[in-house]
Amino acid sequence: MMKKQKRYFLTEEQIPTQWYNIQADMTNKPLPPLNPATKEPLKPEDLYPVFCEECSRQELDQENAWIDIPEEVRDLYAYYRSTPLVRAYGLEKALGTPAHIYFKNESVSPVGSHKLNSAIAQAYYCKKEGVTNVTTETGAGQWGTALSYAAKVFGLEAAVYQVKISYEQKPYRRSIMQTYGAQVTPSPSMSTRAGKDILTREPNNQGSLGTAISEAVELAKTTPNCKYTLGSVMNHVTLHQTIIGLEAEKQMEMAGEYPDIVIGCFGGGSNFGGIAFPFMRHNIKDGKTTRFIAAEPASCPKLTRGKFHYDFGDVAGYTPLLPMYTLGHDFMPANIHAGGLRYHGAGVIVSQLLKDKLMEAVDIKQLETFEAGVLFAKAEGIIPAPESSHAIAAAIREAKKCTETGEEKVILFNLSGHGLIDMTAYDNYLAGNLQNYDVPEELIEKNIDKVKGLV
Amino acid sequence: MMKKQKRYFLTEEQIPTQWYNIQADMTNKPLPPLNPATKEPLKPEDLYPVFCEECSRQELDQENAWIDIPEEVRDLYAYYRSTPLVRAYGLEKALGTPAHIYFKNESVSPVGSHKLNSAIAQAYYCKKEGVTNVTTETGAGQWGTALSYAAKVFGLEAAVYQVKISYEQKPYRRSIMQTYGAQVTPSPSMSTRAGKDILTREPNNQGSLGTAISEAVELAKTTPNCKYTLGSVMNHVTLHQTIIGLEAEKQMEMAGEYPDIVIGCFGGGSNFGGIAFPFMRHNIKDGKTTRFIAAEPASCPKLTRGKFHYDFGDVAGYTPLLPMYTLGHDFMPANIHAGGLRYHGAGVIVSQLLKDKLMEAVDIKQLETFEAGVLFAKAEGIIPAPESSHAIAAAIREAKKCTETGEEKVILFNLSGHGLIDMTAYDNYLAGNLQNYDVPEELIEKNIDKVKGLV
Repeated sequence: MMKKQKRYFLTEEQIPTQWYNIQADMTNKPLPPLNPATKEPLKPEDLYPVFCEECSRQELDQENAWIDIPEEVRDLYAYYRSTPLVRAYGLEKALGTPAHIYFKNESVSPVGSHKLNSAIAQAYYCKKEGVTNVTTETGAGQWGTALSYAAKVFGLEAAVYQVKISYEQKPYRRSIMQTYGAQVTPSPSMSTRAGKDILTREPNNQGSLGTAISEAVELAKTTPNCKYTLGSVMNHVTLHQTIIGLEAEKQMEMAGEYPDIVIGCFGGGSNFGGIAFPFMRHNIKDGKTTRFIAAEPASCPKLTRGKFHYDFGDVAGYTPLLPMYTLGHDFMPANIHAGGLRYHGAGVIVSQLLKDKLMEAVDIKQLETFEAGVLFAKAEGIIPAPESSHAIAAAIREAKKCTETGEEKVILFNLSGHGLIDMTAYDNYLAGNLQNYDVPEELIEKNIDKVKGLV
Repeated sequence: MMKKQKRYFLTEEQIPTQWYNIQADMTNKPLPPLNPATKEPLKPEDLYPVFCEECSRQELDQENAWIDIPEEVRDLYAYYRSTPLVRAYGLEKALGTPAHIYFKNESVSPVGSHKLNSAIAQAYYCKKEGVTNVTTETGAGQWGTALSYAAKVFGLEAAVYQVKISYEQKPYRRSIMQTYGAQVTPSPSMSTRAGKDILTREPNNQGSLGTAISEAVELAKTTPNCKYTLGSVMNHVTLHQTIIGLEAEKQMEMAGEYPDIVIGCFGGGSNFGGIAFPFMRHNIKDGKTTRFIAAEPASCPKLTRGKFHYDFGDVAGYTPLLPMYTLGHDFMPANIHAGGLRYHGAGVIVSQLLKDKLMEAVDIKQLETFEAGVLFAKAEGIIPAPESSHAIAAAIREAKKCTETGEEKVILFNLSGHGLIDMTAYDNYLAGNLQNYDVPEELIEKNIDKVKGLV
C-alpha cells in the first residue's frame, strides 16, 4: 500500500465533453470589441475574413455556458488527456509548508504545453469549414509547435512566422515545427508586404510578435482557403483551455479537496482562464470563496499597473479595438526569457473579471521566477517553462504564508509547460547572467495617453 | 462515449511492487563474469569497491525471481508511474496496417526517458548504505540527467563525466544536469589520472564513453563514501527496468490483448530487457509464443554480427570479463545520433537469451530510423529519441508485413524517451545531411581476434 497518492487521472469516459464559457455566467458581461473604423460593436461576420467561422462565433458568445467539444477533438485530446493532477509533496517538503500544493501538469502533452488544447480545436474547425492552409506567429515557440502538429493531424498546411531573434536563438523549436511538417519563416520576411516594408526601412530588424502577427494575418487574408489562428488572448482560445480546469475539478474531488487558491501564469490569459474559470463559476453561482491569482512578469505588468481601456491587440493596429487592461500597444517588454508572457494587453474576459474584483493579479520579477523554477525542478523533477515558473513563484509565496500562519490551505496551480527547450535560460540564470527589469511609471503613462485617443 | 480507448494507466495500487529477475527462470543460466586477474567467477564482494552492495548482490542473483521494490523507490515511481500504454491509432492509420500497435510511453518521466527507473533505485540503495557521493558517465545525456535528479532527491552529491564532444554539442543536457544540482565535467578532464594521461598524450582529445567510464570509476574508487553507478548493460539495471514490462502486462490485459511481438531498441539491453523479460517469462513457463526483437543500429551490430565471447565492458579493460555478444572492446562505433546505442557489447543475460534463440535481433540503418521517427512524430505527436526510433522502425517493418498478409498481429514496443534535446539530429536529417555507416567484416574479425586471447 502506498502511503499517499500523488497523481490523479480521469478515465476517458470521465474526460469532460463540453468546454465552459464563463461569459454566459458573468453578471457584468465584457464590453464589446469595436470595429476600429466604425467604432461599432463587432459581429462574428466581421471576424470571418481572418478567423474560421466557428471560432468567430465562440469569440462573441455570451449566451451559452457550455459548448460541446466535437468528437474528433475529443478523440485527439484522448492522446494526452486527462493530464495528471499532481500533489506536490516534494515541493511541500522543500518549503516545510502545511499547505497542500497541487499542480495540473500540462507539460505532458506531446508538444510540451497546454497550447495543444486550442490548436487541435482551431485546426479541426478550419478543416471542417474547408480551409486548407493555416497561418500563425510564434515567439517563444510553444504555440507554433502546437499548431504545426495539429495542422498535420488534420492534413492542413501550416505557415508559421517565427520572430527572427527566436528563430535564431531557439533552433530546436524551429526544428520541431519542421519535423511536424510546417513551413517556418523568420519574421520580418520578404514574403509579405508588412515584412518587406520593415526590411526596406530596417534591413537588420530582429522581429517582434507584433510584426509576426501582421505577416501571418496578411498571408491569411491574401490566400484562398487560408485562415489565421492565435494561441492566446482571444475568448475562444480561453474557452478551449477550460478543459484544464474542468478536469482539475474532477481530479481535486478524487483527492478529496477543493482549492482555496487557484494560480496561473499570465500572458494573454488562456492558460490562466483555462484552469481558473471552471472553479470561478462556483464562486459566481455557488458561494465558494476561492481566490484566483494571475501571475505576470514585473517587466510586463498590464494587470497590476496597466489601465482598463479600449486598445489594439497588436502593434500595427490591425486588430479590433479590445476593452482590456493594457500597457498601450506600443509597449515593448524587456527581453525576459518567459517570451510567452511578453504581451502588452490582457484578454477581454479576464480584464472584466479583474475590474470586478473576481480575481487578483501579482507581478513577479525574473530572478524570483527562476529561483522558484530551480527549486521546483529539484523537488519535483520537472524543469518548468520560464512562463510556468511565474505560477510556481506565486504558489510558493502563498505556501510560505501558510508556513507562517500554520494554515493548511489548498493551493492549485497550472504547470502550463516544460522548459526543456529553454535550457539556455537556465544556463544564464545559473551563471548569474540574468537580471530584473523595472518599468518606469512615466513610460506606462506615455503609452496610455496615446491609447486614450482611440475611442 | 469515446469510440476507442487510446491510453491505459494503472492506479497506484496496481503498480507492481516487485521487479522480475529473469535469471531465476532461465534454463541455461548466464555464464559467470570473471575476475580478469584470476579468471575466477566473480563474487558480489568483488564488486563492492565500485558498486553499492545491494546492486552487487542483485547483479549475480540467479535464485530469486522476484525482488521487492523498496517503499521509498515506489514512492518516487508514483511521481510518474504508471507510464501510459498507448494504442498507436495514428501510426496504424499512417501505415494502413491491420496490426494493432501499442507503445509504452517512458518519455513522460520527468527526465524524459526510462533511465530514471534505475537511477532512483541505485541512488536509494547508495543512500541507505551510507554513501554520500555518486559518480557516473554520460554520452547522450539521458542517463546523466536521470542520475542527477535521483541523487538530488536522496541528498547525494552527483559527479557526472560527460563525453567532451557531447558536453559541447549538447549544452541543454549539461544545463539540465546542472539545474538538478549535479557537478558536470567534460571528459577527458584533469581531475583524474585516467583523464590526465589522455590529455597529456593528446591535448585535443574529444572524449569517449570508455574514457568517461574510467574517470567516473577512478573517482568512485579514490573518494570515501562514493560509489559508481551505471545506466545499462548490468543485470541489476535491467532488473530495475522490468517495471516497464510488468506494468505493460497489466495494461495490455486492460486493453484485452496480448502481444505477438515485443520490441525494444538495443544499446546495453536495459530498456529492451525491461519491456521484454516480464512477457518472456510466459514463453519460458506458460507456453506463450511471443517474438522478442531487439533493434540495434547497423553501425554497431553486436547482436546481429558480433560474436559470443568473454570480453571487457570498457575500452580500457578495467571491468570484469563478461560473457557476451561483442564487437570487441576496441570497436569504435560511427558517430550516429543514437548515442545511447553506441556500445560494443550486449548485457550478459540478453546474450545468453539470444544464444538460446529465446529472442531475435535486427539491425537498422540510421536513415531508416529517422524516417520512422519523423513518421511517428507526425502520426502520434511525440518526437522520439533517436535511440527509440530504432524500436519504431522495427515495429513499422513488422506492421508492414501485416499489411501484406492481412494479419492483425499485436505489436508492442517501448518508446524509451523523447528527442526534444536531440533536435539538431532531426535538423540534420531534414536537411539531408545524415548518412548510413557500413561496418566492414574484416574490422569485426580483427577486433574479435584480439578478444579471443582474453580467456
